Amino acid sequence: MSDTTAYVVFTPSGRRGRFEVGTPILECARRLGVDLDSVCGGRGMCGRCQVLVAEGDFPKHGIKSSPDSVSQISAVEEKYASMRGMKVGHRLGCSTRLLNDVIIDVPPESQVHRQVVRKQAEARDITINPVVRPYYVEVGEPDLYHPSGDFQRLASALKLDWDIELQDTDLYVLRALQTTLREGDWKVTAAVRHTLGKYDEIVGLWPGLKNRLFGLAIDTGTTTVSCQLVDMASGEVLAVAGAMNPQIRFGEDLMSRVSYVMGKPESVTEMSAVLRDTINQLISENCDEAQVDCTDIIEVVMVGNPIMHHLALGLNPSELGVAPFALVTNVAVKVYAEDDLGLNTCLGARAYFLPCIAGHVGADAAAVVLSERPDLSKEITLIVDVGTNAEIILGNRDKLYAASSPTGPAFEGAEISCGQRAAPGAIERMRIDKETLQARYKVIGCDLWSDEAGFDAAIEPTGVTGICGSGIIEALGEMYLAGILKTDGVIDGDLAKKYDCVQADGSTFSYLIREGEPEIRIIHSDVRSIQLAKAALFAGAQLLMDHMGIDKVDRISLAGAFGSHIDTKYAMLLGMIPDCPLDKVRSVGNAAGTGARIALLNAQSREDIEQLVTRIEKIETAVEPRFQDHFIKAIAIPHLDQEFPNLARTMTLPARSEKEKKEAEANNGISRRQLRKMRKSGG
Amino acid sequence: MSDTTAYVVFTPSGRRGRFEVGTPILECARRLGVDLDSVCGGRGMCGRCQVLVAEGDFPKHGIKSSPDSVSQISAVEEKYASMRGMKVGHRLGCSTRLLNDVIIDVPPESQVHRQVVRKQAEARDITINPVVRPYYVEVGEPDLYHPSGDFQRLASALKLDWDIELQDTDLYVLRALQTTLREGDWKVTAAVRHTLGKYDEIVGLWPGLKNRLFGLAIDTGTTTVSCQLVDMASGEVLAVAGAMNPQIRFGEDLMSRVSYVMGKPESVTEMSAVLRDTINQLISENCDEAQVDCTDIIEVVMVGNPIMHHLALGLNPSELGVAPFALVTNVAVKVYAEDDLGLNTCLGARAYFLPCIAGHVGADAAAVVLSERPDLSKEITLIVDVGTNAEIILGNRDKLYAASSPTGPAFEGAEISCGQRAAPGAIERMRIDKETLQARYKVIGCDLWSDEAGFDAAIEPTGVTGICGSGIIEALGEMYLAGILKTDGVIDGDLAKKYDCVQADGSTFSYLIREGEPEIRIIHSDVRSIQLAKAALFAGAQLLMDHMGIDKVDRISLAGAFGSHIDTKYAMLLGMIPDCPLDKVRSVGNAAGTGARIALLNAQSREDIEQLVTRIEKIETAVEPRFQDHFIKAIAIPHLDQEFPNLARTMTLPARSEKEKKEAEANNGISRRQLRKMRKSGG
Repeated sequence: MSDTTAYVVFTPSGRRGRFEVGTPILECARRLGVDLDSVCGGRGMCGRCQVLVAEGDFPKHGIKSSPDSVSQISAVEEKYASMRGMKVGHRLGCSTRLLNDVIIDVPPESQVHRQVVRKQAEARDITINPVVRPYYVEVGEPDLYHPSGDFQRLASALKLDWDIELQDTDLYVLRALQTTLREGDWKVTAAVRHTLGKYDEIVGLWPGLKNRLFGLAIDTGTTTVSCQLVDMASGEVLAVAGAMNPQIRFGEDLMSRVSYVMGKPESVTEMSAVLRDTINQLISENCDEAQVDCTDIIEVVMVGNPIMHHLALGLNPSELGVAPFALVTNVAVKVYAEDDLGLNTCLGARAYFLPCIAGHVGADAAAVVLSERPDLSKEITLIVDVGTNAEIILGNRDKLYAASSPTGPAFEGAEISCGQRAAPGAIERMRIDKETLQARYKVIGCDLWSDEAGFDAAIEPTGVTGICGSGIIEALGEMYLAGILKTDGVIDGDLAKKYDCVQADGSTFSYLIREGEPEIRIIHSDVRSIQLAKAALFAGAQLLMDHMGIDKVDRISLAGAFGSHIDTKYAMLLGMIPDCPLDKVRSVGNAAGTGARIALLNAQSREDIEQLVTRIEKIETAVEPRFQDHFIKAIAIPHLDQEFPNLARTMTLPARSEKEKKEAEANNGISRRQLRKMRKSGG
Repeated sequence: MSDTTAYVVFTPSGRRGRFEVGTPILECARRLGVDLDSVCGGRGMCGRCQVLVAEGDFPKHGIKSSPDSVSQISAVEEKYASMRGMKVGHRLGCSTRLLNDVIIDVPPESQVHRQVVRKQAEARDITINPVVRPYYVEVGEPDLYHPSGDFQRLASALKLDWDIELQDTDLYVLRALQTTLREGDWKVTAAVRHTLGKYDEIVGLWPGLKNRLFGLAIDTGTTTVSCQLVDMASGEVLAVAGAMNPQIRFGEDLMSRVSYVMGKPESVTEMSAVLRDTINQLISENCDEAQVDCTDIIEVVMVGNPIMHHLALGLNPSELGVAPFALVTNVAVKVYAEDDLGLNTCLGARAYFLPCIAGHVGADAAAVVLSERPDLSKEITLIVDVGTNAEIILGNRDKLYAASSPTGPAFEGAEISCGQRAAPGAIERMRIDKETLQARYKVIGCDLWSDEAGFDAAIEPTGVTGICGSGIIEALGEMYLAGILKTDGVIDGDLAKKYDCVQADGSTFSYLIREGEPEIRIIHSDVRSIQLAKAALFAGAQLLMDHMGIDKVDRISLAGAFGSHIDTKYAMLLGMIPDCPLDKVRSVGNAAGTGARIALLNAQSREDIEQLVTRIEKIETAVEPRFQDHFIKAIAIPHLDQEFPNLARTMTLPARSEKEKKEAEANNGISRRQLRKMRKSGG
């Protein structure tokens, strides 16, 4: 303590070392490899290196730490605090000098590699490991006697201050370089993109200090496109915007879009263009909401099924429409967001497309894997991402399988007589009184059940508009539990004599959920649509289980908008998913979008998923004869010969006679035609 | 000889080895590292691996070699010869199998790294070391059971057959990939660009076998733009096209173009666009002449002075118009020829710009260095590249200096009353009869002198149109030798009394070269223009000699269109260049264009010049007081105080009295103003 050095311990890292008295805390942190952020390189401008000086005795370290262990608050800190504000007790690491032994705490927001906490239980936090970071530098001015290019002096400053080694630089950087340098009076912030173990590139350049940069995680679904605007330093989602996929005008489902392209190859450009326009609209909405300039977006991650992936890149998807469903490329693709895709971002922003797994299992499935990481567990996880198609992933740390199953759009409320997308006014929950067979229900946007007082007023002005995917699942499940729906998927016409809610509908019967305007009912063909969809899903899962040689799974994750609304119990009751302890069946929300966000924020995750997809075994349902067999048996409710012991422990399942099963088996004959039809349109 | 192996010796490499009988000669060559070309990878399609089987006894090797030492002419060879033709005695290395000990000669045209012989004496041959090469592969077809992208199977084939490791691939390659693969029935040729020690990239892809690829060497001068179309395998120049630089409409000289941009920054785009259009016109002319498809151009090299370099890249050159003349970048720049520059080439073709040396010494000077390689010799070489400005390079293997000197356009015939560019009809040679003072001359495009019989008829229909740069130099030199021109640059008015060809012209006198229509004469201001230009050139050279601490040079190379027409003796007589043994003064033609071609054909040369320019010391004439002093003294003819002993040994130089010298010194006062004017316009 009497010499000219002092000892500093950083928490929470525990890194420690002895430095000359007077050394700035930021400098100590750097030399010890402590994760303490800085954009301005220690000039007291960015405020990223804020630390806390611990106060008290720390016998473990033999240190008595106090605010006096470091230098007094400097003029630089006062200026920063007055301009940008600073929490009490916070110090700028670059302006605070070591005086005596001290304990310095680096709060999470001052760490580059901070954690983004995911709300969902069991989900791992996202560690920020930036692909692009801002670096402030002061560039040497040109000298007539020692001529050198402005770019070389910028590169030298980045090397000297930040140890950044630039490679070839793109023309757009050079074109704006001289103006930016002079506008910033030779002080600029460069956004530098780091490709792991390879090279550094300038993505953007701004005069002066630029503290915040942004990224986009874009999920291009068949039906909807969603776009998250993310703060690249904090990982915070600043805005989320969504829209219908404008390509719907070229075909509702994927295969009709591919057919359109096959007939008119030049339409690829048109289809890419309308998608681009929609994404730009979403970017604009995001930026307006978060008060962000779109030219500060320096990285984009895109996910989507293979056909959407191809169309987003301007690649003709025709080959994906016919066997052997050849992808143009199955590895991750990195392009220019502005120049290659026409997105309104920083000129140098790159768009990273996650790898596709197979011709039917796309970058969206890869994103789901990245979000859920089934490869990190010994337990066997079944992940089902239900959109217009269902992506199914099965496995554990030893082995992973993936398949796409042609469920069609029924789970999204399409092809259902009173169906609609999940939106305010849609029935999402339902219960049937076993005595009266009357339904009561809840609609999205209202907390009351339909039989509670004030319901009619509460749902104004939207009213009840239809029934969404999760509502249909519950409706059919409740109908099955109440004996209205039989195991063969037929609405029991005998009940029509006793109950008003069961009504003849041509040669079949329907079940009335709600009278009035609009009237909501489930008709025979609604049940058939859901049966076919859920059979495809179940059969796909079973096929992967066959390949893995297992007959039960340890966990099930339901992903997608549908999966996030559904009561998992009903999904199992209906035979959408195999039996599993119910507490191990989780809704994981928009896992593809989350995976995209992980890839946006964490450079290592890209390497991980690029490696991981090469280990995933792809199963093509179209060429597996077993799939057809599984499918036929899965049409019955819940299934012709599968048992659901875990479900049976939580509710009383209707008993099924052998006669009933036989009827169900006989009825399935009708579905082979429908199966072929689904294959054609479902992709 | 009795075992199952045989011995093969390749000439001229001398590489030798023993292989199993039956091994194809191409395979032997590959395993021995013999430089034997192949595009098709040994499938008998490309004909690049042709070899000759030596016949006779070779006691040195203990081999009796004969056509029977290898397999008979195969069906594949017969087919190739019938379709494409083959010289007698030539064999396809891939189809010819080793039977017995043999000597195999690899002719130059079958070597990848063949030499391109340069006509000019002393010039080193260009070794072809391709940046881009074609590789034919047969790609695996997609497999439903083992899904992989088409690109991955292409990459695998390139890896397997050619050991090529592809990195990230550009979108334009992916967009055309599936169509090309299927069009070629899974047989394609990829043009792969190799970046030394770094990575391989696909530049273009064609169905089937693609044997020939092309490159462009483009020299964008202030006044003219020239474009050479080169066969990338043979190095042959297939076509040369040239045009006026269309930017002349924005300003005749560089500084007026920069002024234009300063006043209207958005005009950079316009100036780049007109240049692009002209280059595309030249490409089109080249391709028409050589019957080449422009999409088969897979590499471009561009050179030019710093301002042209910037404008070609769409970089605002304003900073080059004012001290400290900051370049945007001084290293080599690699961009996309089509996407970044708008040139009509293969979509993936890159355009490589040689590095600029300083704000006034550009990529054209770097190209001259690459052509002449003064750094490889112990002798001190002075290189002068005379265009609108003069680039001057001085040095040897120990040290190199470079400067740009503001000569103005007088050497190109501009600012001369009867001046014109070097073109048919322009006077390029002149002699003056010492008795009559009558001139006789030769014009470009005619082998006769003007006093020879049939001259008038021979020059029809062009006639005599003016006098070009080299013609003016000879005219002034001859006038000086004949005593018409005095050392102070004044035409001797006393002679007007005796000779008709010396005539009063206001307060000064002129010399009549030719009567009639058009009349060609040299007037006082013509002499002044040339004096200023040659003084700038001489002073620049002298400044570099000062820096190097030398008072004479070992060799002089005159480059540029002007330098290639000039009689070097007259250049020295007029004091354009310092004294030097006349047999060491050479015209080296369009050295910048040659340097561009070297960079196009030889990958290593790019590394060499990129390294070399960092070692060149840049001298800024504008800030060297000595330059002004040297300039003033160099205005006299040939010089106020320099001696030309080497020149004096080959011709009788006029004696100069001290009075004459004094007059010359006094007269120079007028030139300080003109010097300032030149600085402003010359850049």
